[in-house]
Amino acid sequence: MLSKLIKNNLKYSNLLIRNYGSSTKGVLPQTPTPDFPGEYKEPIVKTTIPGPQSQILYNKLNNLQDPRASHFFADYTNSRGNYIADVDGNILLDLYCQIASIPIGYNNPELIKAAKSDKWISAIINRPSLGVLPPKDWPALIENSFMQVAPKGLKNIFTAMCGSCANECAFKAVFMHHQHVKRGGKPFTQEEINSCMNNQAPGSPQLSILSFKKAFHGRTFGTLTTTRSKAIHKLDIPAFDWPAATFPDLKYPLEAHEAENRAIENKCLQEVEHLIKTWHVPVAGLIVEPVQAEGGDNHATPYFFQGLRDITKKYGVAMIVDEVQTGMGATGKFWAHDHWNLSSPPDIVTFSKKMQAAGFYHNIEFRPSESYRNFNTWMGDPLRALELEVVIEQIKKNHLLENVDVTGKFLKNGLLEFQQKYPTLVKNVRGQGTFLAFDSTNPQTRDQMVGLLRTKGVETGGCGTEAIRFRPMLIAKPYHVNQFLDRFSQVLEQMKK
Amino acid sequence: MLSKLIKNNLKYSNLLIRNYGSSTKGVLPQTPTPDFPGEYKEPIVKTTIPGPQSQILYNKLNNLQDPRASHFFADYTNSRGNYIADVDGNILLDLYCQIASIPIGYNNPELIKAAKSDKWISAIINRPSLGVLPPKDWPALIENSFMQVAPKGLKNIFTAMCGSCANECAFKAVFMHHQHVKRGGKPFTQEEINSCMNNQAPGSPQLSILSFKKAFHGRTFGTLTTTRSKAIHKLDIPAFDWPAATFPDLKYPLEAHEAENRAIENKCLQEVEHLIKTWHVPVAGLIVEPVQAEGGDNHATPYFFQGLRDITKKYGVAMIVDEVQTGMGATGKFWAHDHWNLSSPPDIVTFSKKMQAAGFYHNIEFRPSESYRNFNTWMGDPLRALELEVVIEQIKKNHLLENVDVTGKFLKNGLLEFQQKYPTLVKNVRGQGTFLAFDSTNPQTRDQMVGLLRTKGVETGGCGTEAIRFRPMLIAKPYHVNQFLDRFSQVLEQMKK
Repeated sequence: MLSKLIKNNLKYSNLLIRNYGSSTKGVLPQTPTPDFPGEYKEPIVKTTIPGPQSQILYNKLNNLQDPRASHFFADYTNSRGNYIADVDGNILLDLYCQIASIPIGYNNPELIKAAKSDKWISAIINRPSLGVLPPKDWPALIENSFMQVAPKGLKNIFTAMCGSCANECAFKAVFMHHQHVKRGGKPFTQEEINSCMNNQAPGSPQLSILSFKKAFHGRTFGTLTTTRSKAIHKLDIPAFDWPAATFPDLKYPLEAHEAENRAIENKCLQEVEHLIKTWHVPVAGLIVEPVQAEGGDNHATPYFFQGLRDITKKYGVAMIVDEVQTGMGATGKFWAHDHWNLSSPPDIVTFSKKMQAAGFYHNIEFRPSESYRNFNTWMGDPLRALELEVVIEQIKKNHLLENVDVTGKFLKNGLLEFQQKYPTLVKNVRGQGTFLAFDSTNPQTRDQMVGLLRTKGVETGGCGTEAIRFRPMLIAKPYHVNQFLDRFSQVLEQMKK
Repeated sequence: MLSKLIKNNLKYSNLLIRNYGSSTKGVLPQTPTPDFPGEYKEPIVKTTIPGPQSQILYNKLNNLQDPRASHFFADYTNSRGNYIADVDGNILLDLYCQIASIPIGYNNPELIKAAKSDKWISAIINRPSLGVLPPKDWPALIENSFMQVAPKGLKNIFTAMCGSCANECAFKAVFMHHQHVKRGGKPFTQEEINSCMNNQAPGSPQLSILSFKKAFHGRTFGTLTTTRSKAIHKLDIPAFDWPAATFPDLKYPLEAHEAENRAIENKCLQEVEHLIKTWHVPVAGLIVEPVQAEGGDNHATPYFFQGLRDITKKYGVAMIVDEVQTGMGATGKFWAHDHWNLSSPPDIVTFSKKMQAAGFYHNIEFRPSESYRNFNTWMGDPLRALELEVVIEQIKKNHLLENVDVTGKFLKNGLLEFQQKYPTLVKNVRGQGTFLAFDSTNPQTRDQMVGLLRTKGVETGGCGTEAIRFRPMLIAKPYHVNQFLDRFSQVLEQMKK
C-alpha cells in the first residue's frame, strides 16, 4: 500500500511542479500546517460499508427513530483528524465532514483540552437563557470569537442554535426593519397590534424574501419557503408566496467563458430587478448563497454579487448572504463573500456548521426597535462560542487558510486531470479553496461513484442532481487529497468499463 | 438572619400541620431529596440588581449584541443548586430558572462528573450530523434517555435543537401525514412535485394548524403563526392564515367553580369543533399547551383536554401537546398530560427546556413516507441526550417528582395564605406541583413585584399581563420556598401601603 502511495505521489508530481514550481520532484506540496497528532496513515476498509455492526444498530435505531438517512454508524472515539471510524473497524477519509461541519478534525487535542477546562464545563452544564441572564464573560467571549472573524463592516451579532434558525431570525430582523422604515420610526398602530394577533395585515404584513431557484436556506417554514433545491424538501408543507429568481447557470471553467457567463448573469440580474419591482408581495429582503451548495455547487462570479448588492441598495431591499456552508475558511478566505469586492457590505451574513455556533452578523439598524422581538429561550449556546474561540485560534496559529489554499489547488488540479482523462464521468470541475465540486454523468452514476468511493474508504457527498461536493476539514493536506485521488482513479477506471 | 429563618419556619408551621398532618411543629416538611451539596444557605444581596458590574457589562454587550432583555450578568461558576450568583456578588434564589430550563441545579456535581467523562467530551467536540452518521451508542442512549420517560403510547422520537424547531418539525410531520393519508399512500404527482418548487398548491398545500388564543409555541415562522400570547412577538412578521380558538378562561380555584368552568370549557370545545369544520384552510393539526405559560399560566381541566382528544380523533386532526415548558416533572408527574386520562395518547408530544434535549415523541405513522423529508444538519445534539440521561437518573434516584409534589403543595399553600391576606395583590393562585402562578393587580404592580423580589434576592418571572409564574428547579425544597415566602411577605407589606 505504501509503495502504491509513493508511486501515486510520483504520478502527481508533474502536476505539483506545474502548480507550485517545486523543485522537489516526487513530494507533495508542503503546507505550514502541522500534521494531526496520532492520525491514521490512510483509510482502512475491513468490511462492506455499512458493515454488519452498522446493520444491527440500524435495525435497533429503526424501532426508535428514522434511520434511513444514515450512511453507517460512526465510532467517534476512534475517529482522528481527517478520518472517521465506523463500528465495523473501518477507517474512512472524510471529505464530507458531517455535511461540511467539522472544522479542525475529529478528537482535536486542543478541543479535548479545552473541553476539560472549568470554563467549558460550566458552560455545558449551566446552559443559560442567554438573552435574560448572560454569563459574565459573554461580552469578552463575543469579542474573542465572533468578532475575531466578523465580516468587514458588520459590527453586531445575533446568536442562534442552528443554520435554519439563523436564517429564520435574519428574515424576522429584515421584516421588522422594513416595517420600521415604512412607519418612519413611529410606534405600532392599534390596528397593527390587534390584527397581528389574528395573523392578518397590517400587523402581520404581506412581505416576502426573494431567493433563488436551486437555493437551500433551511427547513423551517420561513427558510423552507426560500429553499428551492429539491422537491422532497418541500412537498406537502405550506409555504409563503415568495418569489424566486433564476441563479446563473454558468459555463465552467469560469475563466474560459467570461463573455457568455457575463450575459447569463446580466439576464439573472435583470430578473431579480424585475421581480423586486413587480412581485405582488413586496420584497423586503433577498437571500443568496455564495455557492449554491445543496442545490449542486452552482457558482456565480463577483460581478453577479456586486450587481445584487447594487440592486438591493437601489430598492431598499436587505441583502442577506447565507454563509452557513461557505463560511469559516473553506474557500480560502474566511467568508466566501470576501472574494466579491462589494460596493458596501451585505446587510446580514448568516452562519452555522463549521462555526459550531450559529447566528448572523448585522449592523445596528437591524436590531429591532424593542426588546424581546427577535428572541427565544436559548438565544444560542455559549458552549459553541467557546468552541469557536478555539477553532479560530487554531486557524490562525496553524495557518489553516493558507493550508486550504494549497490543498484546494492540489485537489482541483487532480480533478481537472481526471476531467481530461474521463470526460464523461468528471465534468465542470469548479470551486475555490477546498470548496470544490464536479458533475458526474447523471444521478445514478453519481450515486454509484459515492458508493464505490466509500467501499475504498473515502466518505464524500452528493449535491444537486449529479454533482459530488468536497467539504474537507480545514486541516486536510495534499497527502490526504492524494489518498483520495489514488482511490478515485481506481473508481473511475472501474466505472469507465 | 438565622433566627429570622427559624421564626419564619414557625410562622408557617400551622400551614404545614394542616397540609401534612405533621406532629413536628416548627419544622418544614421533609422530602426524600438530599440537600444540594455546598449550596448557599439563603440569598445574599450586596448591591442593587443589576449592580455596577452588570451595568458595565451591559454597556460592553450593547456594542455587540442586543442586551435589553437581560436582568443582570450571571456568575455561573459561583452559582450553586437553587441559587444564581451575579457579577456583583449577589446570590439570588432562582425560582425562574432560565425560563423554566434548569432541572437539577447550577453546577450539579453529577453533571460536572459526567461532563468530564470521555463519553461526554467526545460528544461535545465531535458533534455529528446525527441523521447521517449517528454515533454507535445512539440507539442505546435513546433507550436510556428519551425512552425512559416516553409518554405512554408513544414509541418513536424526533430530535431537534430547540423548542421552536421541535414544534416546527412536528407541524411538518403532521402536514406530511395529512397529505399522505389524502393521497391514499400513493406517490407524489408530477403536479405536486412541480408546484411545490414555486410554493404553490397542490405541492405546497393550503393547510393549517389550529392553536389557541394566548398560546405560545415558538418564534419561527410556523410556530410564530400559532403563537398568540403577545403582539410584540408577532408584529411585522408575515404569518400563515391559520385559526385560533378561545382557550378556557376559568375561575380559580378550579375545584370551587366546577359547573361554571365546565360550561366555559364546553363553549371552547364547541368553538374548536366549529373551526375545524368551517375554517377556510383545512385544519391538519391542533397544538395545545397543558398550561398556557407565556400567555399567563392559564389552566384548563382534564375534561377540556379529553374533549380535544375526542374532537381531533373524530375529524382526523393530529393532536400535538406542547410540553416544552410543562414537561420534565414540574407538575409532579413527568408530563403534564399524564394528569388527563385521555381516551388515546396525543399524536405528538413536543419538548425542550428542562429536558435539555429537544424534539418530539410520536408513533410510526408520523414518520414521513421517505427519508430526508423531516431532516436537517444537526438533527439534535447527542450531548444534550447525555445530559438528559443524567438528569433522569437523578430524578429517579432522588425522588424528585415526590419532592416537587411536597414543595409545590407548600408553595401553593403559602400563596393561598397571601391571597387571603392581600386579596388585591395576590389573586387566582393556581397550578400543580411547583408549576404555580398567581395574578397581581395589573401589569405595573406585577412588574414592581418582580423588581422588589429581586432586590430581596429572589429571581422570579412574569407571564401573561399580570401573572407571576413559578418555575423552580425539581430540587427546590420547602426551605427554599420558605425563604421566598418570607421575602414575599415583606414585599407585600411594603406594597399594600
